[in-house]
Amino acid sequence: MNRRNFVGYLAAGALTRLPGATLPRIDASTIKGHLETLSIFGRPEGGMFQHGVSRIGYSDADIAGRKFVMDLMRSAGAEVRIDAAGNIFASRAGSEPSLAPVLFGSHVDSVPNGGNFDGDLGSLAAVQILRMLNDLRIVTRSPLTAVVWACEEASFAGAMLNGSRAAAGKQRPGEMTQVSRGLTKTEAIRRIGGDPEKLETAHIPREKYRAYVELHIEQGGTLARDGVPVGVVDGIVSIDDYNVIVTGAANHAGTTPMLGRQDALVAAAELTLAVREVVVSEAGAQVGTVGHLDVSPNATNVIPGEVRMSVELRDLSSAKLERLGEKIKARAAAIASETRTEISITRGGHTESALAATEVQRMIEAAAGRLGLESRHLPSGAGHDAQMMATLMPMGMIFVPSVGGISHSPQELTSWQDCANGANVLLETVMDLAR
Amino acid sequence: MNRRNFVGYLAAGALTRLPGATLPRIDASTIKGHLETLSIFGRPEGGMFQHGVSRIGYSDADIAGRKFVMDLMRSAGAEVRIDAAGNIFASRAGSEPSLAPVLFGSHVDSVPNGGNFDGDLGSLAAVQILRMLNDLRIVTRSPLTAVVWACEEASFAGAMLNGSRAAAGKQRPGEMTQVSRGLTKTEAIRRIGGDPEKLETAHIPREKYRAYVELHIEQGGTLARDGVPVGVVDGIVSIDDYNVIVTGAANHAGTTPMLGRQDALVAAAELTLAVREVVVSEAGAQVGTVGHLDVSPNATNVIPGEVRMSVELRDLSSAKLERLGEKIKARAAAIASETRTEISITRGGHTESALAATEVQRMIEAAAGRLGLESRHLPSGAGHDAQMMATLMPMGMIFVPSVGGISHSPQELTSWQDCANGANVLLETVMDLAR
Repeated sequence: MNRRNFVGYLAAGALTRLPGATLPRIDASTIKGHLETLSIFGRPEGGMFQHGVSRIGYSDADIAGRKFVMDLMRSAGAEVRIDAAGNIFASRAGSEPSLAPVLFGSHVDSVPNGGNFDGDLGSLAAVQILRMLNDLRIVTRSPLTAVVWACEEASFAGAMLNGSRAAAGKQRPGEMTQVSRGLTKTEAIRRIGGDPEKLETAHIPREKYRAYVELHIEQGGTLARDGVPVGVVDGIVSIDDYNVIVTGAANHAGTTPMLGRQDALVAAAELTLAVREVVVSEAGAQVGTVGHLDVSPNATNVIPGEVRMSVELRDLSSAKLERLGEKIKARAAAIASETRTEISITRGGHTESALAATEVQRMIEAAAGRLGLESRHLPSGAGHDAQMMATLMPMGMIFVPSVGGISHSPQELTSWQDCANGANVLLETVMDLAR
Repeated sequence: MNRRNFVGYLAAGALTRLPGATLPRIDASTIKGHLETLSIFGRPEGGMFQHGVSRIGYSDADIAGRKFVMDLMRSAGAEVRIDAAGNIFASRAGSEPSLAPVLFGSHVDSVPNGGNFDGDLGSLAAVQILRMLNDLRIVTRSPLTAVVWACEEASFAGAMLNGSRAAAGKQRPGEMTQVSRGLTKTEAIRRIGGDPEKLETAHIPREKYRAYVELHIEQGGTLARDGVPVGVVDGIVSIDDYNVIVTGAANHAGTTPMLGRQDALVAAAELTLAVREVVVSEAGAQVGTVGHLDVSPNATNVIPGEVRMSVELRDLSSAKLERLGEKIKARAAAIASETRTEISITRGGHTESALAATEVQRMIEAAAGRLGLESRHLPSGAGHDAQMMATLMPMGMIFVPSVGGISHSPQELTSWQDCANGANVLLETVMDLAR
């Protein structure tokens, strides 16, 4: 902790700020220590300096990591509660119990073979804020609640945001009896201390909390590339998923003349490039990806007869996604006609965007400014628990740089100073909301 | 059999032809009868009118089909012998035993779920020529040998031309101990009556035969499309197989900006189209195919980090293939630089082309002309046993139309009249060679 101006801060009663007084600071070595300890749970084989983690939601490693975090919460003087979905809440009273608490946190589960910052940083920074306020006996006006959401990653039956989705009342029909990694979701939730029979009690009423704030690594590479330490998230993008089937005619690769071919892969290649062209043809941060592509029969000496591929589009604006989707369909029709194939494109999924509250964005921006940190507005291309909270309350997200934009990988890396900067922006923002 | 001018033909002693005299003809109903009977062995479930066949080399169905063919050969008065590789030879004496016999035939094995004409037509036409000459007591000057090669299709460990390759002395190191469909090749050859310990005795000496002629369905669609009943094969194409690895960077499809991507599939799509462009940029019958393409990690929401793909080029001219390969490599280098990926292209295989002997091509052309059938020269884009024989003796191939160019499929279809036309061109050509 940087104790500069700490006395001035204390003199302000932790609720108002004297000119020149600043909050105490979370320092890089504290964040480093807690992240390194958490990294033990789910660490891959290979010794103590091994990077990366496999702390899959509902697994033994997840349970061990959650226990470590709950111990930290209790030692911070917080009251710890697990809701029916397995989400962990650590509450700290404010001076005015009637005020709605400020909610902030993230998750500690990881993808298989994931990194040590995704989720962990926001969770441990939230707990550290409670610890520091407790150590310094700072009392805020509003109560504070740090949260660690259960199973954020899409590691249970391919569905993301398992805990926060239950808290937002967005359970899907039949979800509880689905089996993943040998467990039904009912069994999985019970394993981590939830109460699946009373899942509806996890649903957070609107107005219960003042706001939700989440600190997270960017996962993209823009902040790191441009040397900007703080990202103010405008919102979490909308996602359109299309399933594409290209039908040509499988035939002998030696005996079928070039002009007589109905090559499904040639058509799929044209469509792959068309997706990119359409997406970059408009200004903005939208992205479009062909990530999945299967060729049939997939033999060296047979002209491909069928290709199944995905097209995924993301942007803050659903209207823009709709427009890009129509442009891609028009290009596909032209490609089908030119290559004498059939191309069917159907939208398989739509995830609505979640906008950050302007009020919280301004607080984050101001907090960064007070800390002398440059900040930049940007959308989140990845999904986060924050998008569920945005359906219930004002939401804000703070991004810190992720080196090379690498995430969901043991190579995921954020400098300790960037981690501490993010934690301090979170602290400032939470204190502002709790005023 | 068409007995027109038959008496005049017999009067010529079967060795010379009087003006106006023609050979007897193999009629469509005889070919139909034999092909339909052979189709029983390996017929798919589903009743007696089911098309297609699975008569995989060395299988029980193959053994049953071979037995039927050998019975036909014996009933045609031929002397039947199985060589050490399992190839079946049916010999018929000529009036001058010192002359080299004329060799002609094909194969009776099929791909899994293949068609009823590929190989079967040429094999049964060859046996029918022996039967007819026997029935009519026609004696040729040179001896005649009909052959049914063992396992022509690439159904044993992915290698083609198993019997004819052994006859050409082109066994590969380690081939005999390879296991495919639960058998070593030694066991497989023994199953069909071969003698794998003496495989070298299957090697046919140069000069042993006068020439080799094979009747086969085209497998491409050009003869059927243009209504040309007879194809005179110029040669069997050379094949260059390239293995391509495109290395990009797998990354989050939501958080990685379009301009920051190193998308291996975008590069692979550009290369797929470049292969097609380079191949059609020169005049000629060359073909180029990307038939196999695997994406990694192949997930909807991850930018492809690696693509492994095949590029196969075929043409009669190895020099042209070499040139096309160099052009594709140059295009790949430009694509790699433009997409910030790495593209490695290595030639994994080269099959030398096999040219048909000009002398035999002229005989086939003349035979078609005598039968009043239009003919056209064309290359074979598919591999055939004939390419192995071309390394030992003058080789010629006769193609007949294959509807829609469909092959290696139960839908494979050649009209009975086209089958009979081909059989009669084969008969004329063999008689010409045996004169």
